[in-house]
Amino acid sequence: MKIALDAMGGDRAPAEPVKGAVLAAKELKIEVALVGPQQVLQAELKKHPLVEGISIVPAGDTIAMEADDVARVVRQRPDAAINVAMGMVKDGRAQAVVSAGHTGAVMASAFFVLGRIPGIERPAIGILVPYAAGKVFFLDAGANPDCKPSYLVQFGQMGSAYMEKVIGIPQPRVGLLNIGEESNKGNELAQEAHARLAESGLNFIGNVEGVHVHKGVADVLVTDGFTGNVALKVGEGIADYILQQVRGVVKSSPLFIAASVLLKPALRRALKDLRYEEYGGANLMGIDGVVVIAHGRSDALAIKNGLWVANSAAQSGLIETMRQSFSRRSAAPETTPAAGR
Amino acid sequence: MKIALDAMGGDRAPAEPVKGAVLAAKELKIEVALVGPQQVLQAELKKHPLVEGISIVPAGDTIAMEADDVARVVRQRPDAAINVAMGMVKDGRAQAVVSAGHTGAVMASAFFVLGRIPGIERPAIGILVPYAAGKVFFLDAGANPDCKPSYLVQFGQMGSAYMEKVIGIPQPRVGLLNIGEESNKGNELAQEAHARLAESGLNFIGNVEGVHVHKGVADVLVTDGFTGNVALKVGEGIADYILQQVRGVVKSSPLFIAASVLLKPALRRALKDLRYEEYGGANLMGIDGVVVIAHGRSDALAIKNGLWVANSAAQSGLIETMRQSFSRRSAAPETTPAAGR
Repeated sequence: MKIALDAMGGDRAPAEPVKGAVLAAKELKIEVALVGPQQVLQAELKKHPLVEGISIVPAGDTIAMEADDVARVVRQRPDAAINVAMGMVKDGRAQAVVSAGHTGAVMASAFFVLGRIPGIERPAIGILVPYAAGKVFFLDAGANPDCKPSYLVQFGQMGSAYMEKVIGIPQPRVGLLNIGEESNKGNELAQEAHARLAESGLNFIGNVEGVHVHKGVADVLVTDGFTGNVALKVGEGIADYILQQVRGVVKSSPLFIAASVLLKPALRRALKDLRYEEYGGANLMGIDGVVVIAHGRSDALAIKNGLWVANSAAQSGLIETMRQSFSRRSAAPETTPAAGR
Repeated sequence: MKIALDAMGGDRAPAEPVKGAVLAAKELKIEVALVGPQQVLQAELKKHPLVEGISIVPAGDTIAMEADDVARVVRQRPDAAINVAMGMVKDGRAQAVVSAGHTGAVMASAFFVLGRIPGIERPAIGILVPYAAGKVFFLDAGANPDCKPSYLVQFGQMGSAYMEKVIGIPQPRVGLLNIGEESNKGNELAQEAHARLAESGLNFIGNVEGVHVHKGVADVLVTDGFTGNVALKVGEGIADYILQQVRGVVKSSPLFIAASVLLKPALRRALKDLRYEEYGGANLMGIDGVVVIAHGRSDALAIKNGLWVANSAAQSGLIETMRQSFSRRSAAPETTPAAGR
């Protein structure tokens, strides 16, 4: 089991990715291939004590965040670190890719080099959110701003596969993010997706409202990439806002300051779940290989977590399961669309 | 200036609405007509010291929350408190309606009795969120799960009118809730709405991402009713979640408990902005009259706030301004749709 790390991806590359790889190799015994310019990575690696399980795979730099037409640039630069890393998974030299590079570039490279699992219409970004009441696999977090109902059913299938194989939850409960509990609530997409999810054979528990997202009512939450992205980012913003408000109020009195010094670790622990950079990254679901996209601001800890997430998924056999399950589904005769929906 | 209060609407009616009316009349000198069954309201009113400015307008009960086909029920019961209250605005005996009843019933009644302002395609639910960095008028919060780009432009016009007339902000900055800053980001609806907002003559500042909603970058934020409802409810849920997490962690140590006793008022103050019931209600925008929908769980304080919100809007001349502005717009020749968008 080897993970290919795009060592030049992210705002803090190569220092933090290399450091994260060293931590993962040392603490988690994960084998990491650092992909990028050889001399740069060798120099960076020398700053750390020698550790077993790290290799360097020469490649060019990664695709810059500023690239205007990312998909075109990705195609024109087969030597780019991200493309070389994907190629390693393609030909079996690695079992997963981790990158903190530009999300669009990583998606384009994954699509271009690895392709989709047959039967899946659209890859989606899945984020595992560790709420206190239970982990929720949330997708799509932003890959597909416009969705068809069939995509949402496939998101449910992919999310279920993830929760079952990687997290070990049998028969994961699948919920549809919606604006009411009744089946006839929501926009046209949500209504049609509700009907199809009910007939999908998944363990579909119905609609989940925004106020209940964190309450552990579902293991998988599906929505279109527009709503999903807004929901996750509003949640992140509100968490920041609350911290900032608390800080402001605390500063207004010496008594508050004293109390807050005591409470700070408690607050930090409470808010940790809502900091997406702690999770180790988003899973690009539906690609024919394990691809984890870490936050652009990732530090060594985030990269280490990302390598752990990728390694767990690769070890779980998630991709093989999805290949089999979707090839069965696509081989099966098309179900007749229900009339009048 | 008189406000018609649906005294039987909400989970805690008639006690809390009547108490809220008494508070509003006493503290804010707002004239309130309690609309509902005369004997019930008389009995309830007797529990309070006599206060000037409160009258009772006889009507039946309000529409029950359980009604299946709300719109039909509203039409079949012209004597229902909510319909009688709307009728008072229609014929000038009151200048605004406040109800903590079923949102669907209030909307149906408003539509049925008062109708739309000519030129407005769809009424929307507007919520004024008082973030520390500045108030944001957020719409649509859930009335229209499916929207056309033209609706979003009208939401921007209605929100601008509200912020200018009621809150007193000249040339309100209008933002579009979206998943990226560039104009080509988002789903089809957001992309087309962006193009139209840019040409609308409004003070359009472009896209606003979920993480920036609370940062005071815009005075008005427009989105479709599906995304808007999910965003507001996720925000509400996350705020609840954080409180609950903090409580849990605090309980784990006596030191934390001591600190939290000191910090509790600070936390409460910091989180107050995110409790939508504190705002006094949502504004039903686009209806030809001021209609404020208070939370179903409203207590007397929330009702008092709702009466204040309604009174401010009625005094501001918001409806007259919107009538004039939309009649000008509808009289103007249709702008040619830009090609290739």
